[in-house]
Amino acid sequence: MVEKMAKGALSSLDEKLVALLVAHGEIPCSGAAIGAGLGISRAAVWKHIQGLRQRGYRIEALHRRGYRLLGEPDFPSLERMQPYLTALSLLHPKQAYFFAETDSTNARASQLARDGAPEGTLCCADAQSGGRGRMQRVWVSPAGENLYFSVVLKPAIAPNDAAQITLLAGLALAQTLRDDLHIEDLYLKWPNDILIGGRKVAGILTEMMAEPERVRYIVVGVGVNVNGRVGDMPADLQCIATTLRESSGRSFDRSQLLARFLDRLGYWYRQFLQGGFAPLRESWLQYGDIQGRRVRVNFYAESFTGVAESMDQNGCLLVTRDDTGALTTVVAGDVNLL
Amino acid sequence: MVEKMAKGALSSLDEKLVALLVAHGEIPCSGAAIGAGLGISRAAVWKHIQGLRQRGYRIEALHRRGYRLLGEPDFPSLERMQPYLTALSLLHPKQAYFFAETDSTNARASQLARDGAPEGTLCCADAQSGGRGRMQRVWVSPAGENLYFSVVLKPAIAPNDAAQITLLAGLALAQTLRDDLHIEDLYLKWPNDILIGGRKVAGILTEMMAEPERVRYIVVGVGVNVNGRVGDMPADLQCIATTLRESSGRSFDRSQLLARFLDRLGYWYRQFLQGGFAPLRESWLQYGDIQGRRVRVNFYAESFTGVAESMDQNGCLLVTRDDTGALTTVVAGDVNLL
Repeated sequence: MVEKMAKGALSSLDEKLVALLVAHGEIPCSGAAIGAGLGISRAAVWKHIQGLRQRGYRIEALHRRGYRLLGEPDFPSLERMQPYLTALSLLHPKQAYFFAETDSTNARASQLARDGAPEGTLCCADAQSGGRGRMQRVWVSPAGENLYFSVVLKPAIAPNDAAQITLLAGLALAQTLRDDLHIEDLYLKWPNDILIGGRKVAGILTEMMAEPERVRYIVVGVGVNVNGRVGDMPADLQCIATTLRESSGRSFDRSQLLARFLDRLGYWYRQFLQGGFAPLRESWLQYGDIQGRRVRVNFYAESFTGVAESMDQNGCLLVTRDDTGALTTVVAGDVNLL
Repeated sequence: MVEKMAKGALSSLDEKLVALLVAHGEIPCSGAAIGAGLGISRAAVWKHIQGLRQRGYRIEALHRRGYRLLGEPDFPSLERMQPYLTALSLLHPKQAYFFAETDSTNARASQLARDGAPEGTLCCADAQSGGRGRMQRVWVSPAGENLYFSVVLKPAIAPNDAAQITLLAGLALAQTLRDDLHIEDLYLKWPNDILIGGRKVAGILTEMMAEPERVRYIVVGVGVNVNGRVGDMPADLQCIATTLRESSGRSFDRSQLLARFLDRLGYWYRQFLQGGFAPLRESWLQYGDIQGRRVRVNFYAESFTGVAESMDQNGCLLVTRDDTGALTTVVAGDVNLL
């Protein structure tokens, strides 16, 4: 497990190194020149450059010419989130962890919850070495451009109702993106994806530790493709994924996005604890794009096509099957829009 | 977390120390004499005595007189279980862990499962420093006399069906105790207790890590009061608990009991994977003692009395409520026999 905390200020030597690179601008600064300026060897310069890269500084190494600073980190941090947080925000301010890189924010949050971390504990990473989506699928998680974070919840619910937490988090995220960030053509795909123009821009992975009768804790993991480019993604994702920047032509402040989401999440979570899923259902359907859509449903070995009619009071998808004509309640599974 | 492996042979020095104590029988052997015999200091003798105690040797220290061996460990071990294991036994022989003491076998098994341990992984402890029952209750777990163990399962089921695994394990344990060990007057109490003459002798704690649509792994934890005495239990348990020895007048080999259980568990688990809960239901009812019993049901803030009629096809308890006369499906909760 690679795990480096993003918190904490730079050492004064690293600060001087960054200042030197900033002063050079577009012009590469040689390792020898940096070493002479800071009074360290070229090998030590290399080591410090590596350290800065791990903290999110994008530094290019040009053969025989030297180093060039391409970008400073814009890690989410509590400080940068502060202007956008409210009393509603679902966040325990003393339990907010920011990693430059970790294996999986869900794994970190789960570990913290096991060790007694309270509701509202947040784990956020600039990069994940073992990012996961649903069903143990890989979630590609490069540094510097996206959001990967997990929140610990401890609702007094049965395991069977945990799927509603996924829908709740999806609703909060869709509202954040559509209403706060003004992203157009954005919809929720049941149960846990967010699409822009039919391409996936965000996903939610809910995991829980539970006894059969009650949840002990839930970790809601969220991945959002924010400022990256589709062309830099793995080939198999380029046709089905997008990023906020790619689809809107704008860049986004990840701290602001995260804070706005925690605010929306806090609002809906309180609604859920007080009134169950019913208050959420209507709003979810406004952001969802399922009614009347032709879908293929895959669940374990079973697969069928049909027309999605609506979502029931428990958050299950209602589909009229093509083969039997019966209205079927889909509790879980993958749904592909046809 | 205190955690000491019970596996592995004694060092030759520890073997000599045990042999010396055995040779002395009832007569205390002084630290000076042991030290002289083994060529070590009295402080080193003390350290080795402590080490042996942690491995389950019961050694009395008599002021100014020396040490006396009261009992050798009879930890369950793979070697001692071997004669009773069959091809059906739900046990991965390369993933059987025996601890002299650990915080909680469920916590250890859960950790192993998270790290990829296969189905059939077993964690067994002679004592637990943080033994837990359902709903985070304490499970008193002294050394030397009881069984505390956990088994990792990875069934492809939804979280909602995990309660059936508790019932399955209860059935396997009731059969082991009633049919293999010939314990009389023994019944299952829905959902997870085993009673002898109305007193609790064993309990099951099922925990899972899951996504909303499917279980990733389940840990079935079992605690059985085997060879202890009710008089040695905490005062609040003395009226409601019993032990196998206390209720039958016999002592039991913990390794044999554990192996027999894993055999029964393997049988029913295969039945469950092939045919769901239905094949288990009939057998469970034969070992259960619920039909026609007056009960009080407690679930979160709700509480009502009624008559338990049966168990439905999903393993839920069916109760006719006194207040409304309605047949009510009890999905989860505490049930007290009145």
